[in-house]
Amino acid sequence: MSYFKIQQIGKVRIEEDSCFIELSKHYSPGLRHLQFFNYIFVLWWISMRDTSKDRSQVLAHPPNLDVEVETGVFACRSPARPNPIGLTKVKVLKIEGNKIFIDRIDAIDGTPVLDIKPYLPGDSVPIDEIKLPEWFDHLKDKK
Amino acid sequence: MSYFKIQQIGKVRIEEDSCFIELSKHYSPGLRHLQFFNYIFVLWWISMRDTSKDRSQVLAHPPNLDVEVETGVFACRSPARPNPIGLTKVKVLKIEGNKIFIDRIDAIDGTPVLDIKPYLPGDSVPIDEIKLPEWFDHLKDKK
Repeated sequence: MSYFKIQQIGKVRIEEDSCFIELSKHYSPGLRHLQFFNYIFVLWWISMRDTSKDRSQVLAHPPNLDVEVETGVFACRSPARPNPIGLTKVKVLKIEGNKIFIDRIDAIDGTPVLDIKPYLPGDSVPIDEIKLPEWFDHLKDKK
Repeated sequence: MSYFKIQQIGKVRIEEDSCFIELSKHYSPGLRHLQFFNYIFVLWWISMRDTSKDRSQVLAHPPNLDVEVETGVFACRSPARPNPIGLTKVKVLKIEGNKIFIDRIDAIDGTPVLDIKPYLPGDSVPIDEIKLPEWFDHLKDKK
C-alpha cells in the first residue's frame, strides 16, 4: 500500500457573523467561474485527529446518537479514520477575491482546506432513496 | 501552508462484468454495518495526475464539453488539481468480505482508494436547486 502527499490550499475561517474559506492567494485564479454554482464540496483536513491512535481506528461510535453503536469507520462519518479527510457540502453565499463565503461548515476556525469541488447533478441522491440504518433515524428529520 | 500524509486503504477493481472496491484485509472491520446504506462516497487518488505539472495547474478545460472553456480547477471536476483526490458517489450493490461491489466508478482498475463514507441526507441537494454554468447544460439531462 502506498503513501501520498497532500498540501493545504487554504483554511476555514469562522468569524462572529460569517464563515468562509480563505484560499492561499496563489490559488485564487482557481476560483474562476465558481460564482456560477451554488453548492460546493469542501474537502478539509481533520487536523485534530491526525494522530496515529485515531488513524489506526477501524471501529467508531457515531457522534450525537441516543443509542450506543459501534460501527465501522467506513459506515459512519467519524472524524477518527485512517485518512482524516472531512467532506462537507456547503452553500456558497458570495465570493470575494480569495474568499468563499458559505452558510456553515462542521470544521473549526483555522482548519486546513484541501480541495473545493462544484456540486453537480450526479452528486445528488433523492432524499427518499437514501437507505440508512435505524440509529440514523434522527437524520430523517432532515429529509 | 502545511503538508499531510495520506495512505492507500484499498483499490478500485474493474472486471469484465463487475466493479468493486477491494479494501486491504486490515481495514475489513471498518465495513461493519455498511450494508445498511445504499449509497457511498468513494475518495480515491487520481494517481495518473500526481505530477508536479498537473498539481500546479489552477485553470483547466472541463472534459466532454462542446464548447471550449477555461475555468478554475475549483469550479470543475478536472483530474488535474493541486490535490488529485477523486470524489465519486456510487451505489452499493453488495458487500462480500473486504469487497464492496458498486454500480460504476470513473476510475481505472488499480486506482488507490483513500476513504469510504456513507451518503447521508445532508449530502443531498434537490436536483432542481443545483445552479450550473451554461457549459454544464448537458448535465441537466441527468436532472
